[in-house]
Amino acid sequence: MSNAVKKSGVKKVVLAYSGGLDTSAIIPWLKETYDDCEIVAFCADVGQGEEELVGLTEKALASGASECHIVDLKEEFVADYIYPTIATGAIYEGTYLLGTSMARPIIAKAQVEVARKVGADAVCHGCTGKGNDQVRFEGCFAALAPDLKVIAPWREWEMRSREDLLAYLAERNIKTSASATKIYSRDANAWHISHEGGELEDPWNEPSKGVWTMTVAPEDAPNEPEYVSLAIKNGRVTHVNDEALSPYAALMTLNDIAGKHGVGRIDITENRLVGMKSRGCYETPGGTVMFAGLRAIEELVLDKTSRTWREQIAGQMSHLVYDGRWFTPLCKSLIAASESLAESVNGDVVIKLYKGQATAVKKRSPNSLYSESFATFGEDDVYDQKHAEGFIRLYSLASRIRALNSK
Amino acid sequence: MSNAVKKSGVKKVVLAYSGGLDTSAIIPWLKETYDDCEIVAFCADVGQGEEELVGLTEKALASGASECHIVDLKEEFVADYIYPTIATGAIYEGTYLLGTSMARPIIAKAQVEVARKVGADAVCHGCTGKGNDQVRFEGCFAALAPDLKVIAPWREWEMRSREDLLAYLAERNIKTSASATKIYSRDANAWHISHEGGELEDPWNEPSKGVWTMTVAPEDAPNEPEYVSLAIKNGRVTHVNDEALSPYAALMTLNDIAGKHGVGRIDITENRLVGMKSRGCYETPGGTVMFAGLRAIEELVLDKTSRTWREQIAGQMSHLVYDGRWFTPLCKSLIAASESLAESVNGDVVIKLYKGQATAVKKRSPNSLYSESFATFGEDDVYDQKHAEGFIRLYSLASRIRALNSK
Amino acid sequence: MSNAVKKSGVKKVVLAYSGGLDTSAIIPWLKETYDDCEIVAFCADVGQGEEELVGLTEKALASGASECHIVDLKEEFVADYIYPTIATGAIYEGTYLLGTSMARPIIAKAQVEVARKVGADAVCHGCTGKGNDQVRFEGCFAALAPDLKVIAPWREWEMRSREDLLAYLAERNIKTSASATKIYSRDANAWHISHEGGELEDPWNEPSKGVWTMTVAPEDAPNEPEYVSLAIKNGRVTHVNDEALSPYAALMTLNDIAGKHGVGRIDITENRLVGMKSRGCYETPGGTVMFAGLRAIEELVLDKTSRTWREQIAGQMSHLVYDGRWFTPLCKSLIAASESLAESVNGDVVIKLYKGQATAVKKRSPNSLYSESFATFGEDDVYDQKHAEGFIRLYSLASRIRALNSK
Amino acid sequence: MSNAVKKSGVKKVVLAYSGGLDTSAIIPWLKETYDDCEIVAFCADVGQGEEELVGLTEKALASGASECHIVDLKEEFVADYIYPTIATGAIYEGTYLLGTSMARPIIAKAQVEVARKVGADAVCHGCTGKGNDQVRFEGCFAALAPDLKVIAPWREWEMRSREDLLAYLAERNIKTSASATKIYSRDANAWHISHEGGELEDPWNEPSKGVWTMTVAPEDAPNEPEYVSLAIKNGRVTHVNDEALSPYAALMTLNDIAGKHGVGRIDITENRLVGMKSRGCYETPGGTVMFAGLRAIEELVLDKTSRTWREQIAGQMSHLVYDGRWFTPLCKSLIAASESLAESVNGDVVIKLYKGQATAVKKRSPNSLYSESFATFGEDDVYDQKHAEGFIRLYSLASRIRALNSK
Repeated sequence: MSNAVKKSGVKKVVLAYSGGLDTSAIIPWLKETYDDCEIVAFCADVGQGEEELVGLTEKALASGASECHIVDLKEEFVADYIYPTIATGAIYEGTYLLGTSMARPIIAKAQVEVARKVGADAVCHGCTGKGNDQVRFEGCFAALAPDLKVIAPWREWEMRSREDLLAYLAERNIKTSASATKIYSRDANAWHISHEGGELEDPWNEPSKGVWTMTVAPEDAPNEPEYVSLAIKNGRVTHVNDEALSPYAALMTLNDIAGKHGVGRIDITENRLVGMKSRGCYETPGGTVMFAGLRAIEELVLDKTSRTWREQIAGQMSHLVYDGRWFTPLCKSLIAASESLAESVNGDVVIKLYKGQATAVKKRSPNSLYSESFATFGEDDVYDQKHAEGFIRLYSLASRIRALNSK
Repeated sequence: MSNAVKKSGVKKVVLAYSGGLDTSAIIPWLKETYDDCEIVAFCADVGQGEEELVGLTEKALASGASECHIVDLKEEFVADYIYPTIATGAIYEGTYLLGTSMARPIIAKAQVEVARKVGADAVCHGCTGKGNDQVRFEGCFAALAPDLKVIAPWREWEMRSREDLLAYLAERNIKTSASATKIYSRDANAWHISHEGGELEDPWNEPSKGVWTMTVAPEDAPNEPEYVSLAIKNGRVTHVNDEALSPYAALMTLNDIAGKHGVGRIDITENRLVGMKSRGCYETPGGTVMFAGLRAIEELVLDKTSRTWREQIAGQMSHLVYDGRWFTPLCKSLIAASESLAESVNGDVVIKLYKGQATAVKKRSPNSLYSESFATFGEDDVYDQKHAEGFIRLYSLASRIRALNSK
Repeated sequence: MSNAVKKSGVKKVVLAYSGGLDTSAIIPWLKETYDDCEIVAFCADVGQGEEELVGLTEKALASGASECHIVDLKEEFVADYIYPTIATGAIYEGTYLLGTSMARPIIAKAQVEVARKVGADAVCHGCTGKGNDQVRFEGCFAALAPDLKVIAPWREWEMRSREDLLAYLAERNIKTSASATKIYSRDANAWHISHEGGELEDPWNEPSKGVWTMTVAPEDAPNEPEYVSLAIKNGRVTHVNDEALSPYAALMTLNDIAGKHGVGRIDITENRLVGMKSRGCYETPGGTVMFAGLRAIEELVLDKTSRTWREQIAGQMSHLVYDGRWFTPLCKSLIAASESLAESVNGDVVIKLYKGQATAVKKRSPNSLYSESFATFGEDDVYDQKHAEGFIRLYSLASRIRALNSK
Repeated sequence: MSNAVKKSGVKKVVLAYSGGLDTSAIIPWLKETYDDCEIVAFCADVGQGEEELVGLTEKALASGASECHIVDLKEEFVADYIYPTIATGAIYEGTYLLGTSMARPIIAKAQVEVARKVGADAVCHGCTGKGNDQVRFEGCFAALAPDLKVIAPWREWEMRSREDLLAYLAERNIKTSASATKIYSRDANAWHISHEGGELEDPWNEPSKGVWTMTVAPEDAPNEPEYVSLAIKNGRVTHVNDEALSPYAALMTLNDIAGKHGVGRIDITENRLVGMKSRGCYETPGGTVMFAGLRAIEELVLDKTSRTWREQIAGQMSHLVYDGRWFTPLCKSLIAASESLAESVNGDVVIKLYKGQATAVKKRSPNSLYSESFATFGEDDVYDQKHAEGFIRLYSLASRIRALNSK
């Protein structure tokens, strides 16, 4: 690799940098490959954890970067990316709460902003050539900065394994704390953590205990249920257990509470955008509770046709977010539709957490369409039971005519 | 009521009869109201339980019916109504597995068949005037027998409460074991039981323990998980724990196993077809396991576009079944679409049951599109990582052009 | 009818009044039936034509109304009801441009406003009991004024024919210019006119020449085509043939031009909301041109996924408008989604009118995604033909894997 | 090009051969590039016209092919590809009747069959690298023969223009009748002809007269309308003007009749699958009439929900066919759904052809749900106008409750 022909035309690259083995190797590789270009490391803090940020700047500089920008996006991530998405009800393929997918656009946007600030002419990411993230990042770059060159080392270089990367760094005397064996490939942010690889590569294997990191096993969760209350306004959680919290703080609080009860684990074999299937395990403890809370209020406030429409928005949004099409007119339109419906998604929910389950057990809303007197047996002014006959006759009229005609 | 004007034009009525208080009162009421018409009691055995059928004929005759037909529909119910529905993935409003809804068309169809056999000119049901079931029954009658008169006593008579009904029977010296107080209104069949009324009428109340009948509380479930394996062929469960079972037997077996682990409880405030909301609690223990099993195999065999389409079929089917439109061309079309997709829904699943949860932990299929070698890091012949660049460029081309144009 | 029991509880009724035979008879009937209630006539001017408004107040007072309110809604109708609807692309059952449907909500809203102003306790309309309009009016009343009583004489009285109405009026010495025979039932506004009845009642009859009123027959249209240009901004027509025009004026201008060329006739057998089919002929000359103009700009500016989404909004909106659900959260959400997309629907279109056809022959847009250099043979920087291989490989990857597995 | 490195690994290639300039150049290029591989020319007769097939074998052999297979697919194309597609109602982006798209799968399938017969190890097509057809062909190859190598010369070689190709052939002394200038790029089959290029590359240009080949200009069409009758059975045309005709013969007959009246021209700027827009003009004379005929019968036989579902199938199918996903489970499912609905699409239609328009003016069906007596004013047994009140009350109940609650 090191003796490959130098490529030219790139002077300054902003690299999405995590401090892990891959992006540590990318820094020298970029310099060697792209004509001694300058490397600006960039790290988005989307809540992946303090431990991933400590010493990051030093590490980046030691690897050869000229600068390191760490940008705090935690509140913006929850407020402007997660909330608009979960308001739609989007779940990819019925199960996946889109944790990694939602983070990509905000990271790509911040990376472009750094590139503009430092006058870079290229951006670089460490995603592999078989995954979704390369498409998400580059889809966002195409929408936000079509003039910037995109460098995707995993599709360019010949290295294929951790061993290759370690040897590459050793050759250059760049220190790394990374070890040759790493069972699982993980991605974390405030909303979730994903796990792939190891025994998970065979869907006939049950995930082992060592997979999970944000939640305890349901078997190890407390034997007593815990109740948590959410106040919801316009489809957003404003209070947890009666305490007003910022979007990010609410999510963190719920992650703590729900993680203790083993809530939010999923295990899915999904269709990647690039045409193959992959198997992943995801943990979304707080998000699972938030999601359940929103849906519970919707049960009270959305009528039949509105709810059906909300499901269509959800289906569209789930693919749009998964497929990395955030910065598109379609996304704006979906969010406009969803926020309009969310105007009535207001109320309180109590959610029971127990051994891996989050169940909305109490719900109320000032916008509720539920009325005990309408639903039950007795008389009321709004609904005369005799109306039902007319309704049924017209509702089934086409069936009646069809049956009469076919005699 | 008793001194109301006699209505004429009905000679023989087939009544959907359960032996409960309502339909017991309906028999004398029909005779008094409709000119001494003959009443043929009809009861569909859709797996609601032996105890509901014992002594039913005697009871019907004692109440004034001339005959009582009990028709065993258990296998047909599971094979021809439940399986086609769950293959589509239909869940009403995201939660309800359609237990009561799926039973209505088969009951209505059998009721019409009895009516034809005995030469009846009317059919009668005991559904209230505020619920969905009246629409479902009468929608099926319209499609199958538009010439039969439909009598819906709850929309005709003046009685409004259990007390009214008990007084009505007492007046006529008809014995009943029914008591004046019954907290919950319930409907059971092989697939599920529903509960409404009592404290459930306020969605701000958590359901009390006394609501549930088919499942233990998660808190009371075993502390050890249990694993159950399903073999699935063309979207239908053929074996449970390696034992070949008929559709009904498979469901019964799964009801037993899952009920012990508290699996299958839901609590929903839903939109009734008749325009109001109602709150119900449902238990579908075995069905929840079956449903999870089908979805798990689908994860392996359906590609991205097929799965998206399957979700659209599911959405349509959920409303169609809930709304009682079974005997329509739309239903045939949805089932044709779904059965075509289900041709590849073959394989084995292992489901873990624990404290209220059913989780598919192992899945495999001869039709699987998942391949470890394609999905993972290494090289393969089918997927060249360099292809990804071209894919991404074209996939994001519209975004790129839009961005370039707006400069 | 005249000796029916007086009904009480209504003191002042606002009647949607047209001056035709039906609503002329309704005035005395209301007074006789509802205990000498006061009748306030209300007429919405939605562009149905001056001739329908001349002398209307006198006629209403002569028939027994105490007041007559004529409200000019022409600009508001086009700006706030028609434009938001056609921006979505809504066409009912593939053909019907929703002319009558779009007018009902604005009329109902204005009628309620009059009712509030005059302190009425009821509203009344002259729609028949078999049509859609009763549902549309009353659906709007339910949303806007659930406290007002709704009176629908055609569902209450025993009269069934024009002869019955004429006799009723004659009995009361109320003069009318209506004749006993009227072949077609018509409804007109700025957007369209509908025709039903007469020979149209058999779909095996071709509509006769006498049906049509807003357009000439294509055979009688000029032998030379005419070109009309539209300037479009945010999905709304701002200029016709380079002249800035208000929404209503633009529509009137286009009605004139297109009507001369026989443009905008349709003939449809449609599904009414009330479950039966009906056959109608509609003329929408100017609207057809506007519609074609919007779609032409969309061809240039919407990408594949956005356009697909726009079609889904259109499908939803077509039913929502037809079914009279304008004043609902669903409608707001659909319009929010559509207006978001319409932000890029800007540009110019030239439409050729000839013998019944309106064809967009020239189109351009500042937001166009079309680029000659990208689409054609030669090289460009944005699209490298070699990218296509990668795209195709990934795009067809699931098919490839399926085929390889099934060997 | 001629001195490029020989590629190996291909012994025998089946080339989709038209006899035009491109595929004439491909034959020598393949031999030179792929190590003197054997070339089997293959031409699918999908109704593109006799003149395109005359002398084709001689030409192929003269260019260096070892064999030439011309396969008659005309009846199969109409019966098994066109009819299933138009039964769904699929129209791409609201306008395009999918003429080229529908032909690709049947051609690819026959090409693979020839490849199997002659023992080829590769297939080759002459599609450009910017179009849809490369994706369609290769998508089908991936599904049917993932083991065959696919060669796409336009993505491999350096030639970019007709001049390049002519020079290439001249250098090798291969004669061609092709000229250096060809204004439009065209693709023809029994269903349609497409035109691209020339002045069409600017959507602000009206297509000139010279573009069109299958239809006369509306201005040049007869001044008298012509009526054509279709008998339709299960969504397929069985008779034209009372004559029983095979699928292909029916289409040819309708092409003749409709072409004379200028029917079936469209002009669209569409989204290509590969992410860019292109502008094309298409002529589908007979198909436009068939399409109108099917939709006319559907107006009579599909109820509201079935028709809505049919539109969803259409939307899906339009993208699937355009995108070349014919040989997929999704396609089978869509066709199964559509054919189920088409069971009632039976009847007769009379279509008026005049100056570019095809209008269904008479329609009848044994499965019609339309009934004059139900739809009109008078009384009937099936529909009691008083039923409407109940229907409306329940239909608008959610709106009423929402309004009452928001007071």
